Amino acid sequence: MGTSGRRGRPRDEEADARILDAAGDLLLERGYDRMSVDEAATRAGVAKTTLYRRWPTKDHLIVAVVARIQDAVPVAYSGDVRADLTAYLNAITDGLNRMRQVARPATAGDMSAGLVAEVAAAAARHADVGAAVQAMFTRRNALVVTLLEQARLHGELRAETDPEVLFDQLAGALYYRLLVTGRPIDAAYVDRLVTGALDGATS
Amino acid sequence: MGTSGRRGRPRDEEADARILDAAGDLLLERGYDRMSVDEAATRAGVAKTTLYRRWPTKDHLIVAVVARIQDAVPVAYSGDVRADLTAYLNAITDGLNRMRQVARPATAGDMSAGLVAEVAAAAARHADVGAAVQAMFTRRNALVVTLLEQARLHGELRAETDPEVLFDQLAGALYYRLLVTGRPIDAAYVDRLVTGALDGATS
Repeated sequence: MGTSGRRGRPRDEEADARILDAAGDLLLERGYDRMSVDEAATRAGVAKTTLYRRWPTKDHLIVAVVARIQDAVPVAYSGDVRADLTAYLNAITDGLNRMRQVARPATAGDMSAGLVAEVAAAAARHADVGAAVQAMFTRRNALVVTLLEQARLHGELRAETDPEVLFDQLAGALYYRLLVTGRPIDAAYVDRLVTGALDGATS
Repeated sequence: MGTSGRRGRPRDEEADARILDAAGDLLLERGYDRMSVDEAATRAGVAKTTLYRRWPTKDHLIVAVVARIQDAVPVAYSGDVRADLTAYLNAITDGLNRMRQVARPATAGDMSAGLVAEVAAAAARHADVGAAVQAMFTRRNALVVTLLEQARLHGELRAETDPEVLFDQLAGALYYRLLVTGRPIDAAYVDRLVTGALDGATS
């Protein structure tokens, strides 16, 4: 198939991976405002048209970069839901803290939400970017909700537990601190969070 | 004091309130991108210099508008923490859903985070706006954390309860759905959320 007889799909995936790696590196180096899509194509060694066919705007490209970062975090039930949640939330926290630095290199170390806030704003501005962001989180979060359902079936969580709400409480607290209150998130906070959500506030 | 002999403070506060009301109305009518600060001054019947002296950019003005909306929601412990949290989170949900419509009037009814995402992005872009947003939430959230501490002293919450984490879990889940996953928030979700956070996931 195709004009050259090459297998198209693997080659496309390889180019996609190179583009997303280059875009991710540029984002971390320059920040959202100062990176250009053309530069990502050049650094990845692909034609600009290849990149634009796949991701028509910088906002679309950034969402794909964030999805790739997310997909690097494994999700599997080990039989110990507290350990699994702690590991997963620490991975999310590390990723969010890396992205927190991005887009404001001059004030690195401050509590800006950086790139994460730009992605949220891009999702709010462009309906198709919003749909892409929501699809990405729906897909990823379903994995963790499945893990929580397995833990419930296993008897680690109460039968009445609402896995979707439990996940929102955990991930939500991290993003809330990042995007809204600007409070720090770290391993000590993740421990407090998992303990609070699993143990509950009433006896 | 002053050149005219008028009492300055009450008059300033009255002008501030008029400006914030006008800016809030314009935001709801036009959205963030399409409203102008000058228009808010005109509609409020104040000199542009009065407005700019108080809030130097549109981002600063918007944060003050959001703070005013937040401050309209009362916070007091009634002796029934479940009822208090449910009422408070429903008020937050109503406010967030109103702001969700803003800035994308052409697609009203969709699941955009709208104005809330713009505020988060503005906070990430400008250090002083970020500081103002964080101060606003610190002040507001401390009221709810105090309410939770009262409920704990009252024996409604377990002694081990971490009020700050409990609040992050509740407010965080709402903002997470609004800003990140784009899922709806409503009274039914608030009920699931309060039940999940108070009861906990383990027995």
